Amino acid sequence: MMSPSRDSLVDALSMKGGNGEHSYDSNCHYQRGVFSETEHVVKESIKEMLMNLDFPGCIKVADLGCSSGRNTLLAMFEIVNTIIETYQQVGRTNPPEMDCGLNDLPHNDFNTTFKLVPSFLEKLKMEVKGRCFVSGVPNSFYSRLFPSKSLHLVHSSLSVHWLSKVPDGLENNTKSIHIKDPCTPNVYESYLNQFKKDFSLFLKLRSEETVPNGHMVLTFMGRKVSDDLFKDCFQTWSLLSDCVLDLVSEGVVKESEMESFNIPFYNPNEEEVKEVVSEEGSFDINKIEKIDHILPYKIDGSEEEDEDLSLHLEAGKKHASWARSITEPLLIAHFGDPIIEPVFDKYARYMAKYLSVSNYRPNTTLIFVVSLTRK
Amino acid sequence: MMSPSRDSLVDALSMKGGNGEHSYDSNCHYQRGVFSETEHVVKESIKEMLMNLDFPGCIKVADLGCSSGRNTLLAMFEIVNTIIETYQQVGRTNPPEMDCGLNDLPHNDFNTTFKLVPSFLEKLKMEVKGRCFVSGVPNSFYSRLFPSKSLHLVHSSLSVHWLSKVPDGLENNTKSIHIKDPCTPNVYESYLNQFKKDFSLFLKLRSEETVPNGHMVLTFMGRKVSDDLFKDCFQTWSLLSDCVLDLVSEGVVKESEMESFNIPFYNPNEEEVKEVVSEEGSFDINKIEKIDHILPYKIDGSEEEDEDLSLHLEAGKKHASWARSITEPLLIAHFGDPIIEPVFDKYARYMAKYLSVSNYRPNTTLIFVVSLTRK
Repeated sequence: MMSPSRDSLVDALSMKGGNGEHSYDSNCHYQRGVFSETEHVVKESIKEMLMNLDFPGCIKVADLGCSSGRNTLLAMFEIVNTIIETYQQVGRTNPPEMDCGLNDLPHNDFNTTFKLVPSFLEKLKMEVKGRCFVSGVPNSFYSRLFPSKSLHLVHSSLSVHWLSKVPDGLENNTKSIHIKDPCTPNVYESYLNQFKKDFSLFLKLRSEETVPNGHMVLTFMGRKVSDDLFKDCFQTWSLLSDCVLDLVSEGVVKESEMESFNIPFYNPNEEEVKEVVSEEGSFDINKIEKIDHILPYKIDGSEEEDEDLSLHLEAGKKHASWARSITEPLLIAHFGDPIIEPVFDKYARYMAKYLSVSNYRPNTTLIFVVSLTRK
Repeated sequence: MMSPSRDSLVDALSMKGGNGEHSYDSNCHYQRGVFSETEHVVKESIKEMLMNLDFPGCIKVADLGCSSGRNTLLAMFEIVNTIIETYQQVGRTNPPEMDCGLNDLPHNDFNTTFKLVPSFLEKLKMEVKGRCFVSGVPNSFYSRLFPSKSLHLVHSSLSVHWLSKVPDGLENNTKSIHIKDPCTPNVYESYLNQFKKDFSLFLKLRSEETVPNGHMVLTFMGRKVSDDLFKDCFQTWSLLSDCVLDLVSEGVVKESEMESFNIPFYNPNEEEVKEVVSEEGSFDINKIEKIDHILPYKIDGSEEEDEDLSLHLEAGKKHASWARSITEPLLIAHFGDPIIEPVFDKYARYMAKYLSVSNYRPNTTLIFVVSLTRK
């Protein structure tokens, strides 16, 4: 079970299922917040799509990388709601049928989501009177998921930054689990190449599945700068790197295990995104919005309270629980169970420290909301 | 959690998930055997449907009440295989896309099935070179599951005998959990009425979802005789009744709990099936085949070995494990966890006894395979 091959590591990629303390469902406030900030782009996109397609009788919507729990159905509820509202606004009295496909990897905890479907459908019936069908689609979004020309709207929130595999050529990235200062240029290149391949494939597959003039809204982690290659790409992984390194020096984790572990994740900059979309050629970019925050847990209260370490530690713990909810299955697949508690204890403390000085650090990460139309 | 209302009992209806000793996946040899005996009807139906619909570019197949584990994908594999073969036989070189919807109640263990999807798709790619999409549809088949006129083939194996709710009017069915000799005529009527309502609704909903000339093959438990109303309807439930009654007399189960429990299941006779299909009016019956066996575990060896009680007990245990895999969630929802071990210990012993005299008892149950065409 330990140290699987690099490809099979991606098989283990999933948010932590169920609804326990460290589950994704209990720690997805941040992801939920992101959706509420990107919702207006999704709504705009839906309206434009419906106009262009002249209000079809059945609309098929896909949510890719839906994860498990309430978040997924929350986004779907807003999408369905917007569709129905738009039909009403233009005086169409018959609402369309809506077919909602929730996609994630086969090891995702679909059961937890599916148990929420009856109340989702009930709420829909009460509030929007739309007929809606929900299904789960267990497969990688780096393969075909739906029949040709069947989708009207594709939505994906905080998923496309996950790569299809750990990039090749990371053998010398021994002191980090991602792109972290200092690192050699080839580490960055390896990640960038894998992202280009993966994102291009993603667009090609979706272009086959989407009707002409169908829309796609992708929200994912990005990076602000284009020339600052050797800075940390994503602070969450840099902190996690430090934690694992500590465990190596404490003898809890073997050096070779740390050296062979790299997170299959890449947050591109805007130029990199535009370049792949343009080269792949199936979609037009309508707009790219940027959301400039990355720390999920703000500390309540005014600045003077920022000196209070216990508050920082509290926030650090919450952030650790969030990081755990999105990485635990991956870490267990490579390092085994026993690493989890110590790694996230450390993470909470590092995060507390980081928060106490974060005002003085540049934040290199942001969120992209990319709205696209199938040509 | 205990003694939920009659409707919510149906929410608990599911096969036992996972792949442990008493799970459905580990105890579905019988159901698998049934599929192999009904397969030829499904294949015939697929071929006729494809001819009538002139080989569409995308075929949507639904499996209703799919349960969890390997069985579901086994049936789907044969269906997909037959579709591809039929295209090849008539010289169509481009295989169609196939969209396979696996349906069951939201509490079904879809996770166990979904983990098997990658190897299912891999096997398909190796053997039949068809492009196939798999999704899970978590909802009762007594509600709409798919968009209008979207399905080409509906398959359902050993599911339609489950009712949408416990029938009304069973207040005086206090000494049994189903229709069991002796019982008053109103018990039989209550079950029959609920079956008629449910099966008629099932046909209406499927008629909305199925394309004209689309096909449906339903396999479910039936009954041989039409006038023998007061005989036991289904021996498995009669045995289970006896077990629960024993536990009442032993003080393990409260009398009131036994009195308020009835299994939402009905196995109709052929006339009842034909009448509902004809009155509902959307489907033509192509054929009804009957399979006349009900005991899942035959005792190996010749007749003289039938005298050996330990062999019977072994078979009784296997049958108990099978009965447990299809009823445990239902029983736990009403009686709670502690009933499970004692009830199926008793079941194994009763079954052993039953097997030792079964040659002399009439078997009233059989399996119907009903092939239908959407008008």
